[in-house]
Amino acid sequence: MFRLIPREEKFFDMFEEAAGNILAGAQALEQLIEAGGNDPAAVQKVEDLEHEGDRITHQIMRKLHRSFITPIDREDIHNLTKALDDCLDLIWAVAARMSLYKIAETTPEARRLGRLIVDSCAELVRAVRSLRATKDVIPFCVEINRLENEADDLARDAIARLFEGGHTPIDVIKWKEIYETMETATDRCEDAANILEGIYLKNA
Amino acid sequence: MFRLIPREEKFFDMFEEAAGNILAGAQALEQLIEAGGNDPAAVQKVEDLEHEGDRITHQIMRKLHRSFITPIDREDIHNLTKALDDCLDLIWAVAARMSLYKIAETTPEARRLGRLIVDSCAELVRAVRSLRATKDVIPFCVEINRLENEADDLARDAIARLFEGGHTPIDVIKWKEIYETMETATDRCEDAANILEGIYLKNA
Amino acid sequence: MFRLIPREEKFFDMFEEAAGNILAGAQALEQLIEAGGNDPAAVQKVEDLEHEGDRITHQIMRKLHRSFITPIDREDIHNLTKALDDCLDLIWAVAARMSLYKIAETTPEARRLGRLIVDSCAELVRAVRSLRATKDVIPFCVEINRLENEADDLARDAIARLFEGGHTPIDVIKWKEIYETMETATDRCEDAANILEGIYLKNA
Repeated sequence: MFRLIPREEKFFDMFEEAAGNILAGAQALEQLIEAGGNDPAAVQKVEDLEHEGDRITHQIMRKLHRSFITPIDREDIHNLTKALDDCLDLIWAVAARMSLYKIAETTPEARRLGRLIVDSCAELVRAVRSLRATKDVIPFCVEINRLENEADDLARDAIARLFEGGHTPIDVIKWKEIYETMETATDRCEDAANILEGIYLKNA
Repeated sequence: MFRLIPREEKFFDMFEEAAGNILAGAQALEQLIEAGGNDPAAVQKVEDLEHEGDRITHQIMRKLHRSFITPIDREDIHNLTKALDDCLDLIWAVAARMSLYKIAETTPEARRLGRLIVDSCAELVRAVRSLRATKDVIPFCVEINRLENEADDLARDAIARLFEGGHTPIDVIKWKEIYETMETATDRCEDAANILEGIYLKNA
Repeated sequence: MFRLIPREEKFFDMFEEAAGNILAGAQALEQLIEAGGNDPAAVQKVEDLEHEGDRITHQIMRKLHRSFITPIDREDIHNLTKALDDCLDLIWAVAARMSLYKIAETTPEARRLGRLIVDSCAELVRAVRSLRATKDVIPFCVEINRLENEADDLARDAIARLFEGGHTPIDVIKWKEIYETMETATDRCEDAANILEGIYLKNA
């Protein structure tokens, strides 16, 4: 039942799987946005990847409950797993809202935010690989932080523009929520990056 | 000041009290919805139960601070208490919004969501009892997860319908928030179920 | 690299710095509200203080990662730092929204909520000082709880009034979010107070 190996490589395999899956989700979301927001196959793909993410999360948690010794602190494994899961949940939340609100045309701001989400997730993949190799994760975390700040400014400007007239209240409600959810997706990437940085500093 | 008993039954009494109180809150919310959303006595009842929940929460936390030995990990007691408190906070948030927005007529979707909240809370009561008896809590957690998925789909469809026309922007704002808050109440039940599952697996 | 002093006074210096910085942020927000919501210099001041708060947070976290022995539990230091940071984030969120939505005139309710935020932050400063002196923090926490309840009632009434007619849907969206964000700022102060109370009880 219990395996007593000091460094369980399996955890790092699963973290890499989780990060790769998030990046695939971000890319499917970008494809949906490029298609104007109305592409049921792309929405389905993001949803499938989100379910896959849930499967990976449960697998890590199960392994965590059954492992006597873990390569990094139990609580850090738990927090990192949860943070990676939250990233994909937010990516799915963006796609779900575009589908729910029957968006038929996307905006330049949505396209730019979609790109920033893909870029943040690509950095997460690099940071997780770096952590496994006990190499410095901080440069990736700094870049994720920079991307989050850029997304923050972009979303704020996009929302300000919604209120500058020419939009129905219903459109304001829809797009305000889409922009905010996209910005929150980059926040979640930053949360995951902060946890990765903490783990790196503790184990460096 | 300190009592050194390995298993403090009092904690389980208080968890059962908390879970029972949440279920009573969900039932009072259902009664409010059945009454069309405008029943000051039902609103007051949910609020009273929410205050009672706060009292139970503080009692558990005080006991936790003063107990030298606890039947389950201190952090698990803290997290479970907080998660149970969050469930009732969300149930109260739904009732408060119905009152605040002067809802005079509820919808079939609100009634179905209200039922799902009651069902989730009833499963929480069973899971807490099962944990005390060191019996398998997982079947209850699986069912709470299923109810949460059902609430998620239901709320999504209900919100989509709000945007299909025939509603003023003000009504969209009100009902979107009510449906979202109801769905979040089932999310909180799932969070509590996940914590119960974790405690069970650790102590099984 | 590691310093082995049982009580690192530096942590308390930094907590006091963080709390003082939050209070300065709340005061700058109040100044913005008094100016009618449209005072770019006041918005800039809140933003600068929020960046200063981030700097203090990172400094505490860095010190935490490098300290072998800490005056209070590592996790408590982490949670308190995060909670204090969240307070200022919310204060900044209020100022950012006033700026974003080009608010040109504030309301009596916004002024009263701004005052409650300042009062809550002033109590946080007192509670942090008291914790350092190993003096009872509970009276300050009770007062923060009272202020949060008052803010809750005030925000609820202000939002109810928005829906009573005479407001465009766009104004409802803007002000509902501003009132809710102000109320959440007092919630965050209460979260920080609860953590302070927990630390005090554990170490008393």
